[in-house]
Amino acid sequence: MRLSLPAPQFIDLTFQQVAALPEDTVAILPLGAIEQHGAHLPVSTDYLVATSVAEAAVASVAEAGTANVVLLPGLAYTKSDEHHWAPGTIWLTWETLMNTLIDIGRSLANSPVKKLMFVNGHGGNSALGQVACRELHRRFGLQTFFAHSSVPKDQGGVAAIDVENGFGVHGGHSETSMVLHLRPELVHMDLATRQVPDAMAEYKHIGFGKSVSFGWTSDDFGPGGVIGDPTGASADLGKELFEAAVAKIAESIVEASTFKIG
Amino acid sequence: MRLSLPAPQFIDLTFQQVAALPEDTVAILPLGAIEQHGAHLPVSTDYLVATSVAEAAVASVAEAGTANVVLLPGLAYTKSDEHHWAPGTIWLTWETLMNTLIDIGRSLANSPVKKLMFVNGHGGNSALGQVACRELHRRFGLQTFFAHSSVPKDQGGVAAIDVENGFGVHGGHSETSMVLHLRPELVHMDLATRQVPDAMAEYKHIGFGKSVSFGWTSDDFGPGGVIGDPTGASADLGKELFEAAVAKIAESIVEASTFKIG
Amino acid sequence: MRLSLPAPQFIDLTFQQVAALPEDTVAILPLGAIEQHGAHLPVSTDYLVATSVAEAAVASVAEAGTANVVLLPGLAYTKSDEHHWAPGTIWLTWETLMNTLIDIGRSLANSPVKKLMFVNGHGGNSALGQVACRELHRRFGLQTFFAHSSVPKDQGGVAAIDVENGFGVHGGHSETSMVLHLRPELVHMDLATRQVPDAMAEYKHIGFGKSVSFGWTSDDFGPGGVIGDPTGASADLGKELFEAAVAKIAESIVEASTFKIG
Amino acid sequence: MRLSLPAPQFIDLTFQQVAALPEDTVAILPLGAIEQHGAHLPVSTDYLVATSVAEAAVASVAEAGTANVVLLPGLAYTKSDEHHWAPGTIWLTWETLMNTLIDIGRSLANSPVKKLMFVNGHGGNSALGQVACRELHRRFGLQTFFAHSSVPKDQGGVAAIDVENGFGVHGGHSETSMVLHLRPELVHMDLATRQVPDAMAEYKHIGFGKSVSFGWTSDDFGPGGVIGDPTGASADLGKELFEAAVAKIAESIVEASTFKIG
Amino acid sequence: MRLSLPAPQFIDLTFQQVAALPEDTVAILPLGAIEQHGAHLPVSTDYLVATSVAEAAVASVAEAGTANVVLLPGLAYTKSDEHHWAPGTIWLTWETLMNTLIDIGRSLANSPVKKLMFVNGHGGNSALGQVACRELHRRFGLQTFFAHSSVPKDQGGVAAIDVENGFGVHGGHSETSMVLHLRPELVHMDLATRQVPDAMAEYKHIGFGKSVSFGWTSDDFGPGGVIGDPTGASADLGKELFEAAVAKIAESIVEASTFKIG
Amino acid sequence: MRLSLPAPQFIDLTFQQVAALPEDTVAILPLGAIEQHGAHLPVSTDYLVATSVAEAAVASVAEAGTANVVLLPGLAYTKSDEHHWAPGTIWLTWETLMNTLIDIGRSLANSPVKKLMFVNGHGGNSALGQVACRELHRRFGLQTFFAHSSVPKDQGGVAAIDVENGFGVHGGHSETSMVLHLRPELVHMDLATRQVPDAMAEYKHIGFGKSVSFGWTSDDFGPGGVIGDPTGASADLGKELFEAAVAKIAESIVEASTFKIG
Repeated sequence: MRLSLPAPQFIDLTFQQVAALPEDTVAILPLGAIEQHGAHLPVSTDYLVATSVAEAAVASVAEAGTANVVLLPGLAYTKSDEHHWAPGTIWLTWETLMNTLIDIGRSLANSPVKKLMFVNGHGGNSALGQVACRELHRRFGLQTFFAHSSVPKDQGGVAAIDVENGFGVHGGHSETSMVLHLRPELVHMDLATRQVPDAMAEYKHIGFGKSVSFGWTSDDFGPGGVIGDPTGASADLGKELFEAAVAKIAESIVEASTFKIG
Repeated sequence: MRLSLPAPQFIDLTFQQVAALPEDTVAILPLGAIEQHGAHLPVSTDYLVATSVAEAAVASVAEAGTANVVLLPGLAYTKSDEHHWAPGTIWLTWETLMNTLIDIGRSLANSPVKKLMFVNGHGGNSALGQVACRELHRRFGLQTFFAHSSVPKDQGGVAAIDVENGFGVHGGHSETSMVLHLRPELVHMDLATRQVPDAMAEYKHIGFGKSVSFGWTSDDFGPGGVIGDPTGASADLGKELFEAAVAKIAESIVEASTFKIG
Repeated sequence: MRLSLPAPQFIDLTFQQVAALPEDTVAILPLGAIEQHGAHLPVSTDYLVATSVAEAAVASVAEAGTANVVLLPGLAYTKSDEHHWAPGTIWLTWETLMNTLIDIGRSLANSPVKKLMFVNGHGGNSALGQVACRELHRRFGLQTFFAHSSVPKDQGGVAAIDVENGFGVHGGHSETSMVLHLRPELVHMDLATRQVPDAMAEYKHIGFGKSVSFGWTSDDFGPGGVIGDPTGASADLGKELFEAAVAKIAESIVEASTFKIG
Repeated sequence: MRLSLPAPQFIDLTFQQVAALPEDTVAILPLGAIEQHGAHLPVSTDYLVATSVAEAAVASVAEAGTANVVLLPGLAYTKSDEHHWAPGTIWLTWETLMNTLIDIGRSLANSPVKKLMFVNGHGGNSALGQVACRELHRRFGLQTFFAHSSVPKDQGGVAAIDVENGFGVHGGHSETSMVLHLRPELVHMDLATRQVPDAMAEYKHIGFGKSVSFGWTSDDFGPGGVIGDPTGASADLGKELFEAAVAKIAESIVEASTFKIG
Repeated sequence: MRLSLPAPQFIDLTFQQVAALPEDTVAILPLGAIEQHGAHLPVSTDYLVATSVAEAAVASVAEAGTANVVLLPGLAYTKSDEHHWAPGTIWLTWETLMNTLIDIGRSLANSPVKKLMFVNGHGGNSALGQVACRELHRRFGLQTFFAHSSVPKDQGGVAAIDVENGFGVHGGHSETSMVLHLRPELVHMDLATRQVPDAMAEYKHIGFGKSVSFGWTSDDFGPGGVIGDPTGASADLGKELFEAAVAKIAESIVEASTFKIG
Repeated sequence: MRLSLPAPQFIDLTFQQVAALPEDTVAILPLGAIEQHGAHLPVSTDYLVATSVAEAAVASVAEAGTANVVLLPGLAYTKSDEHHWAPGTIWLTWETLMNTLIDIGRSLANSPVKKLMFVNGHGGNSALGQVACRELHRRFGLQTFFAHSSVPKDQGGVAAIDVENGFGVHGGHSETSMVLHLRPELVHMDLATRQVPDAMAEYKHIGFGKSVSFGWTSDDFGPGGVIGDPTGASADLGKELFEAAVAKIAESIVEASTFKIG
């Protein structure tokens, strides 16, 4: 059986409809962020990308009928402590976010839905999100998955372009392109400037995507708030990245719906 | 000076635009809930009402130019522990919600915005929300306000109709009417049934809106999840209630923008 | 059967007497406060009123034999963060007070006593106390009740006199009268002064007892610590208020002893 | 200068009187407990002893004029987890009690009073109370003191009588005598029975008052709730112990008022 | 200047020697784990590897004089919740470990040492460790680094051998080889068995080292406790891996000692 | 049956060997501290003493075959808040240490080992350690014991020499002697100076080892960090103290292995 809901929004259901959901239903929880993204991007950037990718992926799966899936309201406010210095950043502490994820997982476990996939748009959530995945699995028996609406450079993502020297982690080429595709009217390309810690490329072990990570806040890189080079971003690339992300998440949802270990 | 933003969404701004907001700007944070609302209403009911009322009120104020106001993304998941028993309810503990509100207030206080108004759609948030208002005022110097998108019966709201005997606190006449107005396709009127603790009217002191309140969860009232009588609800009444609520919140925003004690 | 204890103090019992209490016994927990009350009233004011009213009400019920009731030692130190600025205020954080109430409820639930009524003398406890009532009900199955030894103006209480303009919430006409009745030697009427935020009456929506509440600390109203007008207070009015409160609490105890929903 | 208050109760003061207290004032906080004390003693035993001793000592010092001292309302509910099994025990967790003591100390530090002495009647509070003394000293600069209204056997107290074999730690000879002196009508001597772990005397290192302590709850010793032998208790011994305790605390208050290290 | 301590153990210093450490000193904190490692390896495996690698790397740097470095006592007990089911696993919750790391960082920041590198031997610590790196950097201004004594397969490590199909994350080929090199007497090769979730290789997106991670506990993979194939492990490979790890960490320490962003 | 392990280190065992441990096995957890110990002693002093004494005692018991015993890795970082001011002190808050002990006890309780003895080398841990003993006993059913590798003067230890006037609690005669015995190369006797609060001897009730304790931090006693007189310390005395401590702990382990109440 497949859910054939017109719009597979979890919150459009009554509680009795939730109680009747199939056990292989995958619930999708977008994780955004409200945080500074340089002078040219809105503070909603990560929230916009995460919810847009998740929504499109869910719609695509639902339409194809390849898995049972429901979309949960995304979290706008998450762990943006690396941008704490900037007006417009609204951030939860590690403890508050972790407890929020625990509470959501605990609640979900009181329904037939036993599969929860985070679709994360903010690099600063990745580490804690993975801690949460294990916690929810151990305590509530949920199958949990952590997916990225786009993999940040400092977490193994492929560098989009040479000009960023591998440092496009925040407000750079790809992210700016994404927003140019999704909400062009919110992008101030005239204010986009390159801010790349080129000297860090000298380090063999320490750095983004290298074997030794380091603790940083975004003001370590300069006052502009960007880590990367948005100047060459384009809506076309954004469209390409967006569609690739949607396809990847949609496929991941299908995998999750039948996921078994061993 | 008045903000003349086309759409006064806080998250559409860049961090530098946030940094330039006038000091009398009122930030509006809708508080919803994802929780069972009986067999006939979606679990989104309170979230839907709170965000719809808040959005319309913000738009109205912005259009009229009577105050500087920005809308924050609403909280979908809040304190719905009274509905913990029902699949589809997703609830935060008192501690998690309180810390979430503290984190948001602390973050906001790192910007020129010093006025924060909660527009609350869920009765179960009222008490803790008021605790938060004081905490944010004391610790971060914010002016805080707690408004209701519709005042629940057990917190002083006027009883809409006699048939509910004053007990229409959850999924009843008014709330159902509101959703019939806002999202009629989500209402299953065929499943709407009256569940009213009529016998409680006998108590002189203890009860909803009486001088002695009591601790309850919604399953105390029966398995249906409703406390009230939704059977006579109508979209017309919903429209009326909605517009009254929007007007009230809009006026409250204007008051908040110049609010002074003494 | 009715308890015919000479003095129905919970703490005078042995643990085996507690173990033998009837299941309809109502335990009464006074909630006071130790906090500044202006230049003319002792910091004990709320504690004095709450414990005096509770004790008299319990004695009256026990004497009448209309319900089984036991009195617990009241909490002197509670949530007085709105008076944090003043020497003599001793306040618990929201987290400490909430955990205290949870611990007491959890302990009580390990006895036959399943009904707990707070008799609250401090407006600053009302919101959190109601959060606690639900928490104790949900987690430990207690029937919980929240009553006021006198309802503060900002929480729906009837304004005692016109001169306060509806703002007599702290150290004003009624409260001063109560202490003049209970402990006249502790009242310094020569130091009593009016401090009323008359200008606030202009607001239609925001204010004490209006539809939009706001976060305040008592120093927002001036350095005197009072919100109201104690100058015309009298022991006679205090006696009247006290006796009315005792009667109301006594009746509420009787209601609680047989309280049933639906 | 010496305080010449008729009754040196902290809570009888106005906040401005608190603000005018001398800096060498010693604030006394009795720590009681509400917990099972065997079949013959009320659950209030430790609270009764702690508050009675503290009150008499404060009165004695105030009358003699040998130090400035004020009495705070005692804590009835403290850390009685070793008696968690018994109806009538009302206990705070270690975290709640610790935070309560921190909150009280933090509040007091916002006044001229910089000296705080706990007068403790419950052995189960001793360890955590000492942790609190250091915490309050380090964080708020308070001089803190921890005194016992009677030193329990397992914490170095002198064994009162041979018949208890050194095990009279709870509801035994001395404690029962104390209550026989203070509130004879609450003691059920006909239900008093000896419950002493005589075999434990064999251990050279492990035991009450020996070099190796051990974790216990009172039900480890049998169902009666007593650890000791109350059968020979007398009001005369109680009077003697009480007066000795009052004298010791009174002298300690005087020492505290001028206490200096080095 | 270079520290020329005979043995650069932080804890061998007096507090005044600590106070005199150069500001570019790198403090090394090994993170081990005490947790089940299958039938053939001791529960100390990760602790052994982390501390051995760290100690050798520190010695090598100190001997070469290429950086100022001190070794801190490693943490034996960390976040092993994925092995919670097995006797012998001793694990801290996410909250306890995080607070431990915060406390250590806060303490260190009260000395001239401003650089802290974790050398982690347990995959289960990686996510939370990175959360801690940011927290310590933001709150205490420490430069923080997170290095692995050997990178686990599910976090981007290179698969050692084909037979494990990329699943050698716990008690497998490399880890067993390491212990065979370091403490051969503790390895029970006769009990070593292959336990590899080969079927998981079918998933395109979900899996160890793939783009979508998942929440797991080690008993998901079978009762043996191993995830990998230890049967072909050898002390020779262990020696090779160990020396490579030591060299990598030593180089990383040198980089950290002069690390600058931008 | 007796464990005949060559080296009874808990962490050398596999999880299945842990699962097969006899139920009367005593697990020993040394509690050290990393904290300033004056100009002449290393910050490791307490950790060194606790682990050395515990290790020797465990070896002695294992060799004699008088009890089943296993040694756990000691805690280096504990509650040293009284030395918070000094570089080199690394301290956990009361909450972090308590939760660490709870986590360890909870984990151990998931194995056949039901007896846990702390061997404590740091006076600042004694109070909280005893709180933990009760908590672990109540919550997890563990038999818990709290032993001292050397009893500090302020907790009932016998004063070693007259010259310290009973104040040798930190870095004094005995402790310095111990380190002279164990690690003479780490002691800087040329920097050892007497710092004794002789005037405190005047107090009858308040003081180390007297009936009223007080909250202190080590900088209350002067800038040197010592409380005592190390100048006459000797390796010979250290050897004597060490051997006595080992013998005492060894005997205590044997007692613990058969400990029964009543």
